Amino acid sequence: MNTEYFEKRYSVRAYDQQREVGMDLINSLLGKAVHAPNTGNMQTYSVIVTTDADKIAELAPSHFNQPAIRSAKAVLTFCLDFNRFNRWCRLNGVEPGLDNLQGFTWGVIDTAIVAQQFCTLAEMAGLGTCYLGTTTYNAEPIARALGLPTGVVPVVTVTTGYPAECPGTQPRLPLWAVTHEQVYHDPSDEEIHEIYAEEEALDSNRRFVEENGKESLAALFAEVRYPKAANEQFSRVYREFLKNQGISL
Amino acid sequence: MNTEYFEKRYSVRAYDQQREVGMDLINSLLGKAVHAPNTGNMQTYSVIVTTDADKIAELAPSHFNQPAIRSAKAVLTFCLDFNRFNRWCRLNGVEPGLDNLQGFTWGVIDTAIVAQQFCTLAEMAGLGTCYLGTTTYNAEPIARALGLPTGVVPVVTVTTGYPAECPGTQPRLPLWAVTHEQVYHDPSDEEIHEIYAEEEALDSNRRFVEENGKESLAALFAEVRYPKAANEQFSRVYREFLKNQGISL
Repeated sequence: MNTEYFEKRYSVRAYDQQREVGMDLINSLLGKAVHAPNTGNMQTYSVIVTTDADKIAELAPSHFNQPAIRSAKAVLTFCLDFNRFNRWCRLNGVEPGLDNLQGFTWGVIDTAIVAQQFCTLAEMAGLGTCYLGTTTYNAEPIARALGLPTGVVPVVTVTTGYPAECPGTQPRLPLWAVTHEQVYHDPSDEEIHEIYAEEEALDSNRRFVEENGKESLAALFAEVRYPKAANEQFSRVYREFLKNQGISL
Repeated sequence: MNTEYFEKRYSVRAYDQQREVGMDLINSLLGKAVHAPNTGNMQTYSVIVTTDADKIAELAPSHFNQPAIRSAKAVLTFCLDFNRFNRWCRLNGVEPGLDNLQGFTWGVIDTAIVAQQFCTLAEMAGLGTCYLGTTTYNAEPIARALGLPTGVVPVVTVTTGYPAECPGTQPRLPLWAVTHEQVYHDPSDEEIHEIYAEEEALDSNRRFVEENGKESLAALFAEVRYPKAANEQFSRVYREFLKNQGISL
């Protein structure tokens, strides 16, 4: 099988407004995606597929009205789902035990894996996709909009539609930086500089750094895009939401 | 592109002892896999590729000596890696902020996504793969064996090799059970029974339940495979390990 697609792929954040994405297509892709591996074949996840324009508009503020959701023809909210498994256990008179850090971690892993399998299939079918990381920031209003019961937690959102843009492949860190043979190689300071040099030199990144009045790409990440105080605040909110959904870390 | 592979795939736990899997092949697959989407293109993950037989034997007890690792020709430990990113930030005089639940969750998501992209590519190339969920049980001895510094946490392990077995496609829950249109559909008790009926009726599952002296498949999951007390104990150990690695949930 030709696997060239994998190294040419890119996320798409603008979708063709003239072409709908039907529930049949989404279900046919998901029907293949669920064959992805998962912990103990428990499939402790659910996918909420939103194609209704009003419902998408209702979800958009929770994703900070990013362009990807504003033009999306379908929004897939991939959730960790212990509700189904817990109820099955209780109907069988046994107590499930997934309401802890191990359960959460497997749930996140399995949910991410099936989401990625969907993305691969969707992109191979000519759709564009984009993950929305905002899902873990605003899980509570997303859960409310989608009617999620106890035990169900939004993990990742994927927007999709036929591409209305072609941003092209984005660079990645050098492969040697993220792979290690036999044991971990802790890079020297010099190597750290070398690892990020290409991304730091990109015109788009240099412009982004300058527009934000920062000194470096690292500062853009640490102070503008993912500042510590915001991450900590969103961590508190997510932990509290998890607790309300029956999962204590 | 023919996507029939996706619904026919299955995990492989026994590998051909006569066929080696070279580092070149693994690196060529990983070189494609890293083009998977990831949060902010920060790539906060590392993959430790173990092909050395002695090193694999050293890792095996941490995975309870499962057949998949005992016959593996290569073992890939996919780790969340904040070490590289943190050091880059500090070399640029800024303080990173990923040492919390949000950072952990993105890290797990991104690590699982790149692992799954590797598995898809490996299986398309004729290799068999199997995830080892034991990675989050015994992260500390795994980290020690692989020389992981602060900020690096094992998330999933993938064993690989050329298949020496062909277990065939395993059934999944009915698609309607894991997908929801527009909003979440909370199943009735009757639907819960219906959802698990096919898996409960499988000969292999019935035998497994009987051999363990259990009354139901749910009891096998809740009391034998993933008992609450063990999950809670492993949660404490993983949380403590995360803290030692600089991540506080």
